[in-house]
Amino acid sequence: MENPSKADPRTVAWVDDTVALIDQKALPQVQRSIRCRTVERVADAIADLEVRGAPAIGVAAAMGVALAAHTSTASELPVLLAELHAAADMLRATRPTAVNLAWAVDQVLSAAVAADGVDGVRSATLERAQTLADDDVDRCHAIGANGGPLLSHASNVITHCNAGALATVEYGTALGVIRAAHDRHPDLHVWVDETRPVLQGARLTSYELTRDGVANTLIADGAAASVIARGDVDAAVVGADRIAANGDVANKIGTYALALACHYHEIPFYVAAPLSTVDLDTPDGRSIPIEERSPDEITRVGDTHLTLPGQSVHNPAFDVTPAGLVTAVITEAGVLRAPYRTSLAQAFA
Amino acid sequence: MENPSKADPRTVAWVDDTVALIDQKALPQVQRSIRCRTVERVADAIADLEVRGAPAIGVAAAMGVALAAHTSTASELPVLLAELHAAADMLRATRPTAVNLAWAVDQVLSAAVAADGVDGVRSATLERAQTLADDDVDRCHAIGANGGPLLSHASNVITHCNAGALATVEYGTALGVIRAAHDRHPDLHVWVDETRPVLQGARLTSYELTRDGVANTLIADGAAASVIARGDVDAAVVGADRIAANGDVANKIGTYALALACHYHEIPFYVAAPLSTVDLDTPDGRSIPIEERSPDEITRVGDTHLTLPGQSVHNPAFDVTPAGLVTAVITEAGVLRAPYRTSLAQAFA
Repeated sequence: MENPSKADPRTVAWVDDTVALIDQKALPQVQRSIRCRTVERVADAIADLEVRGAPAIGVAAAMGVALAAHTSTASELPVLLAELHAAADMLRATRPTAVNLAWAVDQVLSAAVAADGVDGVRSATLERAQTLADDDVDRCHAIGANGGPLLSHASNVITHCNAGALATVEYGTALGVIRAAHDRHPDLHVWVDETRPVLQGARLTSYELTRDGVANTLIADGAAASVIARGDVDAAVVGADRIAANGDVANKIGTYALALACHYHEIPFYVAAPLSTVDLDTPDGRSIPIEERSPDEITRVGDTHLTLPGQSVHNPAFDVTPAGLVTAVITEAGVLRAPYRTSLAQAFA
Repeated sequence: MENPSKADPRTVAWVDDTVALIDQKALPQVQRSIRCRTVERVADAIADLEVRGAPAIGVAAAMGVALAAHTSTASELPVLLAELHAAADMLRATRPTAVNLAWAVDQVLSAAVAADGVDGVRSATLERAQTLADDDVDRCHAIGANGGPLLSHASNVITHCNAGALATVEYGTALGVIRAAHDRHPDLHVWVDETRPVLQGARLTSYELTRDGVANTLIADGAAASVIARGDVDAAVVGADRIAANGDVANKIGTYALALACHYHEIPFYVAAPLSTVDLDTPDGRSIPIEERSPDEITRVGDTHLTLPGQSVHNPAFDVTPAGLVTAVITEAGVLRAPYRTSLAQAFA
């Protein structure tokens, strides 16, 4: 598991009857794989951010359901299906914001329900999970192909969090667009927001880009606005955890501040995501549940305590960028523009 | 040195022929004092952020010059004055952005030049440095008295970095305004930006406020915009490291992003600073030198390495908020408003 970039092992894979995950809490210092032998272990890995990124946790959860089927000792179909529904509930409860997770779990459940017999369920769930993984790779490459040309005149782009190979099965969404653009003009340079509190930009995005030979510079999140103000950013590209029917985008906390800076300085702000991130049942951003995570993410880094015990903390994992600040949504079905209620609905049609 | 709040020892003080500093790198876990016995040690303390905050480093540098006079073995006046000019040059070179430092050093040098004989220089420099320290306390209380009423209808304010007792001799500038407002309505609540990369918000501001009984909640810098967007912030109050003649404000990196969020959501954005922070010789923000600090501040927290070795980093310590985004500048001479070129000049008149 030396290298998470293009040519390397997948972020999430089915290996020897386990769900194999690149351990994203250990990166970049340690490259290692986690082998999940139970669905409970998959759920823990998702909740604890050993695997993260909306598309990646979708595929991990899908494989988690397949793993539940695989490890079940049930010999009666109704018993097995009940177990899978319980596994699905557990997986859905791990993280509420990214809609890909619930979507992928439902896809595998549907395959289970349509299958014949317990052995049929076991093979159908795994097959569907594998298909979702393969589809994710194809979708990311399509997103890159669709979005890359938008950056054809960009010398410097900025991204927030990690929407890369490590957030997907491979290649990435926002970083897929950046990779595709970099293939066309290798002098492209990327500003990487470190992305507090979990520092996915510092730990994962700069690692991925450097491994792929993409020039990148790490900055504190608070430095993005001044880098933009001095004219050193041509576009922003970020991923998404859920896109509402009106085009409002939930993404990693800090995305909205970046969008505001782009808006003020008239820089394009692109969101790259597969259609599985779009939730037409969520009318707008106010309806998106925002996960509140542990205060420890704010008050500690490694073994270093930053505050005194008992410090009051607000730690939302995501924020909502209103559709009006989004220049385009780059999907596998094309580049969608406002009005998003129409363009998103059409993309599904 | 248990408590840096109102009733407690000063952040910077002359104690037993040393410059005594509250060690701000050790806070909040360890409360201890550093005793500087040489001007070189004072310069190191400023460069290494053991003392930080524009007014505090001004007073520390002033006392550094006095310490240079005190420890000098020169018996000839020209020799002593040459030593003091060299000490002043060394102190000025520690940090380029905050204009208070150069201003305070020049004040003490002027006292030295005006004094009679080597003993006269020794007493005059210490007297002037002590006066600057006492003045700083008075100015902060005046800033609080002038600015507190601006928050009389605020339930929630937000601040960035630490412009508190620890950034001044005591009481603070932005936190002086907040303390004064809190004295009037003790239900005031403060959102504290953690302030990457050096985390002065997490380590110092929340510590100061909690010690003083001011309710506060720590957030990642990237969360400020979404807290503002949902209507939970009534005003922002920050300090400044240099205010140009046109009202552009250099302050801790991340301030500009906060100002943009306030602007977009029509929330007042106040800057609190003594007139010693105003530099009428700097025409606008583009002329303010912005200190670039070590990549280590971004790539490491405590003993935890966040990136692989050699990661490219941009680490500006400050950014510039244009005057057009500043609702008012709160000084000891009153609350100044646009056009700042006029109001700032008048404040000095």
